[in-house]
Amino acid sequence: MTHTLDRLAQTIAARKAANPDSSWTAKLMSKGPEKCAEKFGEEAIEAIIEAVKGDKEKLTREAADVLYHLLVMLASRDVALADVLAELDARDGISGLDEKASRE
Amino acid sequence: MTHTLDRLAQTIAARKAANPDSSWTAKLMSKGPEKCAEKFGEEAIEAIIEAVKGDKEKLTREAADVLYHLLVMLASRDVALADVLAELDARDGISGLDEKASRE
Amino acid sequence: MTHTLDRLAQTIAARKAANPDSSWTAKLMSKGPEKCAEKFGEEAIEAIIEAVKGDKEKLTREAADVLYHLLVMLASRDVALADVLAELDARDGISGLDEKASRE
Amino acid sequence: MTHTLDRLAQTIAARKAANPDSSWTAKLMSKGPEKCAEKFGEEAIEAIIEAVKGDKEKLTREAADVLYHLLVMLASRDVALADVLAELDARDGISGLDEKASRE
Repeated sequence: MTHTLDRLAQTIAARKAANPDSSWTAKLMSKGPEKCAEKFGEEAIEAIIEAVKGDKEKLTREAADVLYHLLVMLASRDVALADVLAELDARDGISGLDEKASRE
Repeated sequence: MTHTLDRLAQTIAARKAANPDSSWTAKLMSKGPEKCAEKFGEEAIEAIIEAVKGDKEKLTREAADVLYHLLVMLASRDVALADVLAELDARDGISGLDEKASRE
Repeated sequence: MTHTLDRLAQTIAARKAANPDSSWTAKLMSKGPEKCAEKFGEEAIEAIIEAVKGDKEKLTREAADVLYHLLVMLASRDVALADVLAELDARDGISGLDEKASRE
Repeated sequence: MTHTLDRLAQTIAARKAANPDSSWTAKLMSKGPEKCAEKFGEEAIEAIIEAVKGDKEKLTREAADVLYHLLVMLASRDVALADVLAELDARDGISGLDEKASRE
């Protein structure tokens, strides 16, 4: 089964080429990468505020907004989620070794 | 196969209970949710800057940092990634219908 | 003559007690410090984006927004601008000496 | 007497041309506008966190950091504080009229 995040990234990528009037996401992307980055930043701030307050339900919703707008920002620059995940995989291998070493 | 993001969330959750000296992530989480939120914010700013500049390689790396520190911030408040993904799934169902309706 | 920033801080402080319907600033402050912090964050992101792009006119306008919303955020927590300026004055004395020392 | 903020802006502008080794501010500016914007963003996040927490003393200090790094970011793009203040003055005139009108 396709993971939620991968499926979402596909949906967003498809909307990049769509008519700006067909969806809110298509409209946002038609405004360019800077507007997408600004919107991502707004959501990041909101998530930070909920994390400091400690409201778990609101933090859950804001984190969903952050993921969505991170994917929109990446799509606006044609960066594939797969490449971001590959970067995380590569680091995990290194840091796994580092941390094992630090325990010995 | 477990998705990179789910695996990473599990690793981070495990480090929350670990000795702060055992890893960088364990040390960060031992400082509390506000410090984790601050670090997430720093990475969000760096990703925004690379998105505006349009450097795809750096944006890929910064997006990986954002995902990592989003997971750390969520773990610091005991918010499960699964709940964030469920929120995205629920929205997708609604927005899918909304957007279909808007095209008709 | 009163400095623009001091005059602005006084105006904003006066609006904190005003009817929320009397002005946009009074309405924002009636929503509480978290909403004021969120708005300040949005303006900070916009200023960062213009600084990276290098558009001097837009950066000038966004910096004005940042100053305005910093003062609103401070007023929402009853922090006086005078105390913030006193903090800057105190540091300047110290850092002036530090930097002189570092040159010797 | 010169206002703290104006004096600070002059000091920072002077450091832009100085040897990067002569002060921390000179070093930061030698790294370019993007690094200055990143640092401003970090300070903005920290101020937001203290505003949400409601710690007045820490918010005072973080607001001082925000002002300082806003001035550094402006100087890195050769934007004069005087122009930012003129923008605030111009708006105040307009919004004063707007708000008077809204009360009538």
